[in-house]
Amino acid sequence: MPVLPEEALYNILDTWPVAVLSTYGTRFIDSVPVVFVRAGSLLYSPVDGKPKSGRALSRVSNLKRDDRYTLLLQDYQNDWQALWWVKLSGRARVLEDIDESTGQLPDIVAALSDKYPQYQATPVLGARRQLLELEIDSLNAWAYRGIDWLAGRFI
Amino acid sequence: MPVLPEEALYNILDTWPVAVLSTYGTRFIDSVPVVFVRAGSLLYSPVDGKPKSGRALSRVSNLKRDDRYTLLLQDYQNDWQALWWVKLSGRARVLEDIDESTGQLPDIVAALSDKYPQYQATPVLGARRQLLELEIDSLNAWAYRGIDWLAGRFI
Repeated sequence: MPVLPEEALYNILDTWPVAVLSTYGTRFIDSVPVVFVRAGSLLYSPVDGKPKSGRALSRVSNLKRDDRYTLLLQDYQNDWQALWWVKLSGRARVLEDIDESTGQLPDIVAALSDKYPQYQATPVLGARRQLLELEIDSLNAWAYRGIDWLAGRFI
Repeated sequence: MPVLPEEALYNILDTWPVAVLSTYGTRFIDSVPVVFVRAGSLLYSPVDGKPKSGRALSRVSNLKRDDRYTLLLQDYQNDWQALWWVKLSGRARVLEDIDESTGQLPDIVAALSDKYPQYQATPVLGARRQLLELEIDSLNAWAYRGIDWLAGRFI
């Protein structure tokens, strides 16, 4: 299978708004849609100020127990010839007590605000001030029309 | 957390076209977008005639090794107040050598063709004639505006 060129991958990661993050739950795999930004070869996904379904976020407790994640980006269209997906896997770190006033992370928070104008109305960081940092160890991609077509769409 | 009423869940499953199926890979979680139909309380997802990324489908070999799956349906909109997701988990069976001329499965193939007009141009069943049968053991749902809003959208 041809590999997606890094430039195309990075352009997809920089522009595609949503992905499904899967982690190892205690009984079943846990999946949740997330937003994210890329910084270099790392991805960052905030535990943001949107309402949550539970007190302790299962994605956070799961990753503290087993740090392996899988992230799927995909486009569904009625025209199936336009279908594609990109799958990333690797290890994730939970960054806690983020203080925007120090270190590299203000850039991440700013990048999230730039990518998502919705953060004008919602805090980038929720009460726990956590960010997930994802290392990409494995990449797979598919497109109905082939990887070259997908790369061409994003370069 | 309020529970999504069965009628709303079934209407979502009957009309929403795509979900992300996650299974236990050998090294990382494996995730892939899938199409599906509901029949009673079961879901069916075909290994259809669309081009595949590999010879042996990892979702099939994964489920034969560990039959637990998670399926995430979600809607991403720029209006974050319209965001929702529905997460199902349970156990899956790989049905093989499907012969549409016998038993209950012709109904499933017909239901897939009804839900997806795209199957006029693509075979519902690929060369291996496999269908995944998913039992729903666990349901979770979230909506920015709350579960009652999500239920109201689909009832």
